[in-house]
Amino acid sequence: MEQTKPEDKTSGDYVSGTASRRGKSGENVSRNEYYDMNNKHRGKALIFNHDEFESCLELKPRSGSRKDCASLQAVLQHLGFNVETFHNLYYSDIMKQMKHTAKQNHSKDDCIAVIVLSHGDSGVVYAKDTFYNLEKMWGHLSENNCPTLAGKPKLFFIQACQGEDFDDGITLSRHIETDGWYEPHMYSNEPNILVALATTPGYISWRRPTIGTPFIQALCKELYSASELDILSILTSVCHQVAVDYESDTSEPKKQVPCIMSTLTRRLVFTKKPDTMTSSLWPCI
Amino acid sequence: MEQTKPEDKTSGDYVSGTASRRGKSGENVSRNEYYDMNNKHRGKALIFNHDEFESCLELKPRSGSRKDCASLQAVLQHLGFNVETFHNLYYSDIMKQMKHTAKQNHSKDDCIAVIVLSHGDSGVVYAKDTFYNLEKMWGHLSENNCPTLAGKPKLFFIQACQGEDFDDGITLSRHIETDGWYEPHMYSNEPNILVALATTPGYISWRRPTIGTPFIQALCKELYSASELDILSILTSVCHQVAVDYESDTSEPKKQVPCIMSTLTRRLVFTKKPDTMTSSLWPCI
Repeated sequence: MEQTKPEDKTSGDYVSGTASRRGKSGENVSRNEYYDMNNKHRGKALIFNHDEFESCLELKPRSGSRKDCASLQAVLQHLGFNVETFHNLYYSDIMKQMKHTAKQNHSKDDCIAVIVLSHGDSGVVYAKDTFYNLEKMWGHLSENNCPTLAGKPKLFFIQACQGEDFDDGITLSRHIETDGWYEPHMYSNEPNILVALATTPGYISWRRPTIGTPFIQALCKELYSASELDILSILTSVCHQVAVDYESDTSEPKKQVPCIMSTLTRRLVFTKKPDTMTSSLWPCI
Repeated sequence: MEQTKPEDKTSGDYVSGTASRRGKSGENVSRNEYYDMNNKHRGKALIFNHDEFESCLELKPRSGSRKDCASLQAVLQHLGFNVETFHNLYYSDIMKQMKHTAKQNHSKDDCIAVIVLSHGDSGVVYAKDTFYNLEKMWGHLSENNCPTLAGKPKLFFIQACQGEDFDDGITLSRHIETDGWYEPHMYSNEPNILVALATTPGYISWRRPTIGTPFIQALCKELYSASELDILSILTSVCHQVAVDYESDTSEPKKQVPCIMSTLTRRLVFTKKPDTMTSSLWPCI
């Protein structure tokens, strides 16, 4: 919806009673370019891990996902997050957890992080019993639903791809032809949201049973060591590692290309919290 | 599509004939974090401006868009781009122009930029005669279709919103209720793409007849002055300016929230080109 109004005939520019610009036009407004990451707490990090599914869904166990969990727990604690991990929750329990989180007081927190590790399909991810739209997750943390997180960054890291495993005879082409995506209405006009997706829809995403997924492993490694970089630069490096380093050697190589979507309004740097981030060496958990 | 394979029983980790990781696991691969922006030319910038439409579309003229054009031309030339501006092209002519561009040799260019200024609707933007899916634009510049831009950043800046002007009696609610988005399949597994959208779907986007749109104006101002910042940081600042400064004063304030989507694999800084970028002061065109 693009809005316009007739000219203000007096000034030549329209400065209306409908649209207000805080700060005069042309004024060099001083603003903090960075999110305040010096609150008492870093904030909560919720990990929803799914590696087993109800048999009716016909989804294979996601071997290797516990490795991703362990790496995420380590790096998020290193960054000062209060980490809670949930394994194989039913959809209703995920929503209960999100509602519960939204009702908590985050006023002394810097931010919040939510991580989903699961199978996915066109526009959705899987709980233990059913698929759901990722929009449900950030809907709970909107500025209206969770006012103590208003103005603070809400970070979503999604390792969830399209369909089942390649080696089970589910051909790539089926998925490549779909219009799958993590749903259109994911932002719903909310600022301060960052979503990092492991892969673009319908395309290859690797997972290795003993070392986890390249997206999560690269993310953890970069988060661990890049204490002075802002999150978008960190994620650009993650994109590089995954997109350049991982490629099928089929006749037409297939790449995994992570994707960042952001309505962040400031730069985000995980500045050091007391009693955390004691080492800059990734412990290779 | 998440792929996994059985364990390599010998090593414990799966390193397959299907998936190859260039560089040994754990190896600290030296890589350039930044795109090479020191080619002979900065590259082309194509501006597709639409401020008049065929009457059958029932779209109002987009007064103020020429102001955006002038600002973009100034800043893109300042950054060293070879700017070409097209006003009110028919859909077929836009596609011809994109095909022509894809066939050109960009091997001495740093990157390419494409800007669309138009009306939009759910998932689409308007040419003079019809709407089209934005995916069409980057499809032409994919690494297969335009190999001389492979590995180089492809930048898309989209000022195009949902529906017609608010003051024409098209209510916001109609659009807020839609699931509009710039289409799901916009990335199609392509790395090195950046898309900056003026607003999330169905929500307010301002345009002022004599000073243009806040998104494009903020973008131009930030691009002009931020010669040392990377593009994602520049766009974060643009998001801030638009999201914080522009707000309706209706009972429930409506914000315009720009959105960045990125598969960039390196940081992008518009380093100085010879004979360009002579001043750091935005000329307020």
